[in-house]
Amino acid sequence: MSLVVVGSVALDSIETPWDRRDNTLGGSATYFACAASYYTRPQVVAVVGEDFPEEGREALAGCGVDLSGLETREGKTFRWSGRYAEDVNQRETLSLELNVFEDFRPTLSDSARSAQFVFLANIHPALQLEILDQITSPRFVGMDTIDHWIETERDMLAKAMPRLDAVIINDSEARQLSGETNLVRAAKVIQEWGCPTVIIKKGEHGCFLFDSDGMFVVPAYPVENVVDPTGAGDTFAGGFMGSLTQSGCCTPGTLRRAVVYGSAMASFCVESFSVDKLLNLTQLEIESRYETFRRMSMF
Amino acid sequence: MSLVVVGSVALDSIETPWDRRDNTLGGSATYFACAASYYTRPQVVAVVGEDFPEEGREALAGCGVDLSGLETREGKTFRWSGRYAEDVNQRETLSLELNVFEDFRPTLSDSARSAQFVFLANIHPALQLEILDQITSPRFVGMDTIDHWIETERDMLAKAMPRLDAVIINDSEARQLSGETNLVRAAKVIQEWGCPTVIIKKGEHGCFLFDSDGMFVVPAYPVENVVDPTGAGDTFAGGFMGSLTQSGCCTPGTLRRAVVYGSAMASFCVESFSVDKLLNLTQLEIESRYETFRRMSMF
Repeated sequence: MSLVVVGSVALDSIETPWDRRDNTLGGSATYFACAASYYTRPQVVAVVGEDFPEEGREALAGCGVDLSGLETREGKTFRWSGRYAEDVNQRETLSLELNVFEDFRPTLSDSARSAQFVFLANIHPALQLEILDQITSPRFVGMDTIDHWIETERDMLAKAMPRLDAVIINDSEARQLSGETNLVRAAKVIQEWGCPTVIIKKGEHGCFLFDSDGMFVVPAYPVENVVDPTGAGDTFAGGFMGSLTQSGCCTPGTLRRAVVYGSAMASFCVESFSVDKLLNLTQLEIESRYETFRRMSMF
Repeated sequence: MSLVVVGSVALDSIETPWDRRDNTLGGSATYFACAASYYTRPQVVAVVGEDFPEEGREALAGCGVDLSGLETREGKTFRWSGRYAEDVNQRETLSLELNVFEDFRPTLSDSARSAQFVFLANIHPALQLEILDQITSPRFVGMDTIDHWIETERDMLAKAMPRLDAVIINDSEARQLSGETNLVRAAKVIQEWGCPTVIIKKGEHGCFLFDSDGMFVVPAYPVENVVDPTGAGDTFAGGFMGSLTQSGCCTPGTLRRAVVYGSAMASFCVESFSVDKLLNLTQLEIESRYETFRRMSMF
């Protein structure tokens, strides 16, 4: 089974009240792939500029990420800088330069086209669908989106739903997309549009999975020291899709396990800047956190 | 095993964007006792005025609540009126009349003094301690408080901790009381002050239990139609303390089960105005929701 993620590889500059990092590895596909690499060999389809550092490439490759779909183009890499308040849920974007990502319109390689598991990270919905058209026989397609596309392309998103197996979005996006304040009703609306699995991420409050089996609720791991929350959602998606790819099947049981692995990976993500911690985990650490999730929700 | 709750019995007027109720049963001890009545025969220690309706008394007694500690005094009952926004987490207090509750200073009866399980609902911390002094040999004492007392009586609250078995407070109160933003650290601080069990309620996001066994996390039941969120926290406490009293012992296992029963009762509470639904549950409905909690957190 193979997994492809289409999204951004970026250079981030991040400030928190306690520390900062400049030009560090970022982007949805980066976080996703680092997390997924513990379960499978994910292929990244993305674009960077000539300024993308060799160390970044080495770090990802060293982690077992397939970079054959990472195109290098003339120009600069997508850059984002942001600042977190003491309450890390408060984030301010200081600057955003799309650079080479602005004209990102990938033609997939044969190996990417034949992937069974596909994750369409946040990009223009039309582009997400164009990419999906190139996949020969997908088995499980997950998709993310953001408020901006929901605002401007809501009809296109709603129409895309029957082509997806899962949407993985946060609570405010689920409300905005469905037009329902209540998250249970929001998930039902999205399922009625034709997407069988809806995963709603609630950050530090965990997440909901709605599927054919009903509802599954996972609390977030209560991290004692949140260093940098950037990328937690993409990391969740990477752990989720990675675990699912490793299982090779999408039963209610494997979906639930995948949600817990996604939550575990996200909890590691926020414990360091960028993908620092995600690059250096052991299977033992991951399994041990998975077991902590079990212990902390058992009664 | 017997359970006593000391708190308020009130008449509430509640407005939501969809409906309203005037002079309906309210108050911390009311919600608490209705929920606890499914597990034990809770005794209410509270005060009402001469205007308190006979139907209110009958409803509580009919539910199996012991009202021998409900004093009637000259004057009017504690009244509160409030309005909820479409986002039911937004609440505005329209009026608050303490009336007879202003001079509430109960002398416990012999039967109340001999209770093994005691819940001190939100009142002045000095009064909570005075009441606790009257209990002969408590086995498990739970306490609630609110932002106002944390602001004005924080030292007194901190000093009371070694006399308690559990504090049951919401997330913002836990942060304010401990001075820690992170809830895991907040719980540690409170435990270090001498209270072994800390329960942090997060409303629609569930709750944390921190005890000698570590950490237990329960999601809230995702209620599809929240009619009136008033009293959900007191209802949680009632289900929790009621279940614990029924168990007769406070092991990590019975504490976890009690937290789930508390969460189940709170989920029923918000599905109707006032205690309407809490007065009319069946054991089957409660057990079935308990099983739903198990199913929705199993993996």
